[in-house]
Order: sequence, then structure tokens, then C-alpha cells
Amino acid sequence: MRHLNLGTIAELIGAKLAGDADYIVTGIATLGSALPHQVSFLANMKYANQLEACQAGAVILNADQAKLFAGHCLVMDNPYLGYAKLSQQFVPASGFNGIDKSAQIHPTATIGNAVNLAAGTVIGPFARLGNAVSIGANSVVGASSSIGDGSNLAANVTLYHDVQVGSCCTIHSGAVIGADGFGFAKDGPDWVKIAQLGGVIIGDYVEVGAGTSIDRGALDNTIIGYGVKLDNQVQIAHNVELGDYTAIAGCTAIAGSTKLGKHCTIAGACGITGHLTLVDGVHVTAMSLVTHSINEPGAYSSGTGLDTNQKWRRNATRFKQLDQMAKRLKQLELEMSQLQN
Amino acid sequence: MRHLNLGTIAELIGAKLAGDADYIVTGIATLGSALPHQVSFLANMKYANQLEACQAGAVILNADQAKLFAGHCLVMDNPYLGYAKLSQQFVPASGFNGIDKSAQIHPTATIGNAVNLAAGTVIGPFARLGNAVSIGANSVVGASSSIGDGSNLAANVTLYHDVQVGSCCTIHSGAVIGADGFGFAKDGPDWVKIAQLGGVIIGDYVEVGAGTSIDRGALDNTIIGYGVKLDNQVQIAHNVELGDYTAIAGCTAIAGSTKLGKHCTIAGACGITGHLTLVDGVHVTAMSLVTHSINEPGAYSSGTGLDTNQKWRRNATRFKQLDQMAKRLKQLELEMSQLQN
Amino acid sequence: MRHLNLGTIAELIGAKLAGDADYIVTGIATLGSALPHQVSFLANMKYANQLEACQAGAVILNADQAKLFAGHCLVMDNPYLGYAKLSQQFVPASGFNGIDKSAQIHPTATIGNAVNLAAGTVIGPFARLGNAVSIGANSVVGASSSIGDGSNLAANVTLYHDVQVGSCCTIHSGAVIGADGFGFAKDGPDWVKIAQLGGVIIGDYVEVGAGTSIDRGALDNTIIGYGVKLDNQVQIAHNVELGDYTAIAGCTAIAGSTKLGKHCTIAGACGITGHLTLVDGVHVTAMSLVTHSINEPGAYSSGTGLDTNQKWRRNATRFKQLDQMAKRLKQLELEMSQLQN
Repeated sequence: MRHLNLGTIAELIGAKLAGDADYIVTGIATLGSALPHQVSFLANMKYANQLEACQAGAVILNADQAKLFAGHCLVMDNPYLGYAKLSQQFVPASGFNGIDKSAQIHPTATIGNAVNLAAGTVIGPFARLGNAVSIGANSVVGASSSIGDGSNLAANVTLYHDVQVGSCCTIHSGAVIGADGFGFAKDGPDWVKIAQLGGVIIGDYVEVGAGTSIDRGALDNTIIGYGVKLDNQVQIAHNVELGDYTAIAGCTAIAGSTKLGKHCTIAGACGITGHLTLVDGVHVTAMSLVTHSINEPGAYSSGTGLDTNQKWRRNATRFKQLDQMAKRLKQLELEMSQLQN
Repeated sequence: MRHLNLGTIAELIGAKLAGDADYIVTGIATLGSALPHQVSFLANMKYANQLEACQAGAVILNADQAKLFAGHCLVMDNPYLGYAKLSQQFVPASGFNGIDKSAQIHPTATIGNAVNLAAGTVIGPFARLGNAVSIGANSVVGASSSIGDGSNLAANVTLYHDVQVGSCCTIHSGAVIGADGFGFAKDGPDWVKIAQLGGVIIGDYVEVGAGTSIDRGALDNTIIGYGVKLDNQVQIAHNVELGDYTAIAGCTAIAGSTKLGKHCTIAGACGITGHLTLVDGVHVTAMSLVTHSINEPGAYSSGTGLDTNQKWRRNATRFKQLDQMAKRLKQLELEMSQLQN
Repeated sequence: MRHLNLGTIAELIGAKLAGDADYIVTGIATLGSALPHQVSFLANMKYANQLEACQAGAVILNADQAKLFAGHCLVMDNPYLGYAKLSQQFVPASGFNGIDKSAQIHPTATIGNAVNLAAGTVIGPFARLGNAVSIGANSVVGASSSIGDGSNLAANVTLYHDVQVGSCCTIHSGAVIGADGFGFAKDGPDWVKIAQLGGVIIGDYVEVGAGTSIDRGALDNTIIGYGVKLDNQVQIAHNVELGDYTAIAGCTAIAGSTKLGKHCTIAGACGITGHLTLVDGVHVTAMSLVTHSINEPGAYSSGTGLDTNQKWRRNATRFKQLDQMAKRLKQLELEMSQLQN
């Protein structure tokens, strides 16, 4: 169990300490559950009323909020950022285990220093692993793929051949990077496969969630920018390009050759069709379908709101009459104007 | 091939036998395809007209339906339940194979009696496996995770560290339990990772489908209640809580910190946004998006019905004019009332 | 690097060469990036203006387009098909590696000639692998499953027991075939599992994408027809039947016992509910929900179009009043007709 005093924490997270620098804590907890050996934080004003009864040893909060808490305060403008930085201090040490004897490394592969390869990992021909790379049990790295320094693959990850992963990336279990894009040409009834000859290039500081798939390009590469964050079960089709810092929540699917700008956020369960371009700073709300390019930053949505099934049924039935309703409305307006004149 | 006589079956499924207790059957089939050595069942009255020509050796049906079938009848109020119970008698025996010589068990792990570990399984430090646990080929159990008695993991399952699986659970291939929740704090353009320090706690008699992901909590745990059933490719984000007996169909995604009550059923391909609370007994129809908490049990829906693309296009165009149409309608009503007065 | 001359290429792809049969190329590239040692193609007339400046060694195009390009032309009616056929010539040779010493083959399994089994593969009892089958690292083939000649499983694929895969199939990483269908009967609060006793039968020339799941049948089999193409993260529930040549894009989910005809195309992120029948030649657009059987070929859709969040909110609010609006419209029409008379 990690022990940190508040003086060290203040320095680590860039906060100003109002309290005892030698006070020792061993973890983080929410305002409602924190105990005197733990630090808490206030990131959402709707929980401010919990401050008074909060038993945390210290709380990360901003200058205004600090007035509401009697105990030790770690004061900074963005307490949520302080929490994020502090959280990283309490990650359980995975330790250096080196290369398990059951790992299968092709003789032509290059392995950096201080690399962890867990049991059952398979590293293909001409693969290149940087320094301090960690790969979890039963993961597979294909031929001529490369992984940058400090990147971390969990268990049961699959990289196909010719996939480049940057430095300091995290790839979660079940992720598949470099499978064939979905490309076929019609020949009468037959689908003739288009061999997927491109690769995948992933920038530094990218996170790829569990079960997410990123397909290889047809001719050119599929490209994931610097600092991109992908949640679980995201599907990135061939030749998609994601701009730096773009973040995509779970179960969203992006079809082939679509380009997203930088600093986009796409909520969960969205669909984005193929061959589109979205500029920087586009935000799409949950379960929306994007079917055309977006040239202006801002928030976009589709779909309908939730209702009781009974009411929804009636309205959904009317949706199918909507064009007809619009025409009847126009007809009424015409007749009204005739009557009025 | 399993042989069972009808007397034994009646006892196993809690039915009253109207027929020959010594008659022997070896399997189950649908009404339309069953042969004299098989049992069938009638769970949906729309198939009742198949009873007369049905060649099954026996049929599970209720008292009313029993009048329609001339052969042996296994009579009970809920024939579908009878079918479920009987089906379990015909599961192919997987046998006791013990621990494969290629399984990698950390010396600090604890392994119960009568445990099956297939080829290539990896059991991490301080992991604890109960009695009669079966783990399929190339599955990975992380450090300090535990699996209760009689639970069954298929091949290529991944449990991260500090994941607790209850007793008598089934986890299908490709499932990933305990990957990091999707949490980042903004620091200028950067996403600063929030270390996910909580775990996952899964109750007894839970089923987790193929490719389903259940993320670990940020601080507290993600919690899956007793008897919960999750279909394939479901995504459960960090700190979600699912009440006992709740069932969720394929490809549904639930965002962070949302709590579902007991006995909910969520159909396939739904989305439920974060930080919501759904009471017990909520039912959501397929591909609906839930964006607010639900305080009343009942059925809920969103979306629009299917139409031909041609008609749908016209109506979807009108949807974008709907607010304007509503205002025009109101204006007409005003003008009408002026004319009428 | 593969070297091909244009004469050979013309023959391979069924094109008529207008140019130098001995001219040698080593790859394929898009019109905008191709260099003299590469072949390009024109499949979409919106890129025709790139032909004049195109530096490709040769371009695949139709007779009309050939007039626009000064260099060597490979002329055929369907240049996209020509590209598909040619692309297959440039797939990196995976070579014949035989059976890795770490592969675990049950003594009762049958293995054909020229089979590749990569490191960590596990082949179960009574499994049958045809000739020239390739299986990637850490994939698992369950008991009594079979794989036809020339089929290729990538790394980390899971086949359960009693799964039949045809010849010349490709199954990508993370795919799970034969997991239990999602079937339970209610017994008071409990869900009683319905054992899934059927299997999965997959025809020849089928492609299954990364992370796609195909469940085994409850009693009868789940059936995937000849030449079916499934993209990534598709979910096929128990007892679904997919007709020959049907293609399904990423993240679509099909619920239990639904039958699709031949030559259907289902776009990405769709949902199709259970127990439906869709005739041959049905096309469903992205993120549509199909809730009833479809008896006529053609294109079908549901959902609403994308809008700015601000406008969408207003219209989505009105959607919930739609039935009421329809009634008010009808009332107005009535009053109008009274006024007019």
C-alpha cells in the first residue's frame, strides 16, 4: 500500500496545500465514502453539500470550495485534473517480470530493454518492441509490427502484421488491430475480396479499449492520431483517420475512409458512415448517426427521445405520416388564407 | 448419447406424465422436426396446429394443450420452463480433464478441487479458483482475481486483476472483465488518464456473453447482481451497478455510474447514458436510447419505425421541420379561432 | 516484393491491355499517389479529373475512361473488380510454417495436409481440419468442430464445439463462433438456462470479421450461407439463418431465429429483432431497426437525420407531441370544412 504525505501530493498534482504537509494518506475515495487515511475531491458542484460531513483526510477543491471544508485542502483550479494525476500514484505496481519462458519470440524480432512478456505471448517475425514495453498473457504481435517505448498491451490483444503502435499507448484485452477492412467487389453474385494491403499507424499516448477493432487500410494506412482515446467495442474501419486528441466512447462505429478532425468527441453507440470529413471540434451525442460531412464545429445529434412505450408507439406511428401531415398543414394554410381574403 | 425415460423426465422437470413412464427418449426437437425418440414442447400457441402431425415420442404441454396431442404428454403449467430444465440433461459432457500441462499457474494462486484448466490458460498471482471451476483454452485470470465454485469460463476469456466472479457463473469467449473504465481529465489539449482503482464484483449465477466487456470501477467497484444475464457484445462501463436478475440483450451499452434496478430487461442494441438510475422492473425495447433516469417500472422506447427508404426519406426530412410545423399548426389554430368568433 | 508485367495482369484480371505487355509494376496505389511502378484504377467517376496528372504505370479503367489517360491502360467494364482481383496478387506471402511445436492437438483430432498451426493454437478432441488450413496464434478449435480446405483463421479466434466451417473461409481475430445462444425460461424470479444443443454451420467462402460472434442454435443449427460476408463486431444470435451472398456491415445485431434471404446487404450498426423473415434482396440502411418481416425486396430505413444539437432538441421535443399534433391537424381540417360549407 502506497503512503504519500500531503506536501508531496500538492507538488505532484500542482495544488496549493492548505493544511499539514506531513499528514499521510494511502488512497483516494469519493466524498461520501472517504476516511481519514484517504484523499477525496470535488469535481461536480452537486456534491458540494457532502463536504461538511466528509471524513476524508484531505480534499482536492478549488479556492471557493475550500471555504466549505474544515479539513486539509489541496487547492487548485481544476480539482478533477488533480484527482486524475493523483490516481496514477495508486496504480498497483505490476512489477518487472521479464520474459516468460512460454513466450514465443520469432528469432528475427527485436526486443528492447526492460520488456515484460507474459505467459503465452507470441511475437512474430521482424516485429520490433521498444524499451519498457509490457505485453499481457496470450497476446499476439504480428509480423513486422512495432510497439513504441513504454506501451502496454493487456492480455489477449491481437496485432496483425504491419501495425505501428506509438509510445506510451495502452491497448486493452480483446482489441484487434490490423484485421482486414471490409472490402469486396461484385462479380455477378460473388463478392470478390479486395486484399487489404495497407497497415495501421497509431500515434503516441493512444488508449484502445477492450474489444475495439481497428482495421488495416485497403491501400493506404488507417491512422490514429496522437493522444486519441477509444473506449471499448469501438469499430474503426479501413482508412479512417482520427485527428489528435479525439475521443470516442463505447460501441461507436466509423465506416471506411472517414476522416475526423482533432479534438472531436463522439459519444457512445454512434454511427458515422463512410467517406465523410468532420472538422476539428465536432461533438456528436449518444447514438446519433452521422450521414454527411460536418464543416462547422459544434454539437450534433439524431434520433428521438425516450418515452413510455405506449406514448412512443403512437408518435412513431405518426412519424410515418409526417410528410403527409406536412402537406395537409400546407393545404390548410392555403385554405385559411383564401378564407381570410 | 443420453437415454432418459419419461418417468424420470417428468420428475426432473416437475411435470405430470400422461403416458408410458418407461418410454425412452434421447433428445429434444421442435414440434415440426421431432421424431419418436425425441421430446418436444409447445411454448407458443401459434404452433399448436403442429401438434396433430407431430411425431415426437412425448410433448411437454399444459393441461389444455394436452387434449390436442394423442401421444405421451408431460403436462405442466409452463412447458417452456420444462423444456429449459430438460435441455440441461442433454448438454454434451465436457468431462473432467484436470489441469493441462501447458497451463501456467502462478505459485501463489490457490486452486480448488476438481478444477479443469485447458491448454494455455494463465492463472495470475494470488488468484483464487474455487472447486469444480472450469477454464477454457488460452483464458487468462489476472492477479488477485477469484472465481467461485462451479463457475465456467470458456476459451479466450480475460479477467484482469481484482475481479471477483461468483459461483455457478458462465463466461463466454472473448469476454473481458476488469479493463480500465474510460476516464480522463482535460489538461489543455491533453487527456490525463484517471487510473481505474476499483474492481468488478459479479454475483452468483451470472452469465456473460461472448465479447461482452465489463470495466473495473474508477474508485468503487462495478457490480453485477445475482442471476444477471448478459448477452454477447454488451458493454458495461465503470461503476455501473446491475440489480439482481436483470437481463440485457446483445450489443447494448451502458455508460458509467448508471444503476439499473432488479428484474429489468433491456433489449438489444440499446444505449443508456451515464449517471442514471433505473428502478426495478424497467423494460426497454430494442435500439432505444435512455437519456434520463426512470422512476416508474414499465416499458420504454425511442426511435422510429422501419419504412421503405423512399417513404422514410420524406418523413425524415419533415422531422427536421417538426418544430416549425408545430408553430404553424398553432398559428392556424389561432387564426381559425379568430375566424370562428 | 512481387513483380508483375502488364500482360500478365491483363490476363489475371480479364482486362484488355492498351499498352506495353512487358512493363513491370510492383504494387497498387490510388490515382493521387500512384507512381510509375504501380497500377491504379478508376472506380468512381468523381476522381476522373485525377487521371490527367496521374503518374501510375498503368490504370485499370473502362473504355470511355481510357480516352482520358495517356499511359498504359487495362481496359475492362468493371475496373473496381479488376482492382479487387489484382489486389490479391500483392498479399504478403504468409509462407508455410507447418505446425508450431507449442500447438496443442488432441490425439483424436484429424489434421489435413499442408496445415499451418501457429504458436499456442489448441485443437480439441475429434476436430477435423482440411488441407491447407491455416490457424493463427492462440486460436482455439473446440471438440468435434471442422474446418474445410483452404480456410484461414487469424490469431485469437475461438470456435466452440460442433461448429462446421466451410472451405476457403476467413475468420478474423476475436471472432467467437458457437457460444451459447441467449435463452432462458422464467421460473419465478429465476432465469433457467436453456441449454444450447444445436451447432453452427458456415458455408464456403464466408468471411467473418474481427470480434464478430455467431451463437450456436438452441435445438437446430445457426446457418451462414455460401459466400456470406460479415464485417467486424457483428452479432448473430442463435438459429439465425443468413442466405447465400448476404453481406452485413460492422456492429449490426440480428436477434434469434431471424432468417435473411440471399443477396441482402445490411449496413452498419443495424438491429434486426427476432423471429423475422426477410426475403432475398433486402437492403437496410445504416443504424436502422427492423422490427417486422420484410416481404418485398428493396431498401428500408428507420431513424432520423443528423442535425445540430440545438435544432434537433426542438424537433425531438415535438416528436413526443406528434400524435397530439396529428389530432389537432385533423380537428382543424374538420373546422375548416365546416367554415367552408
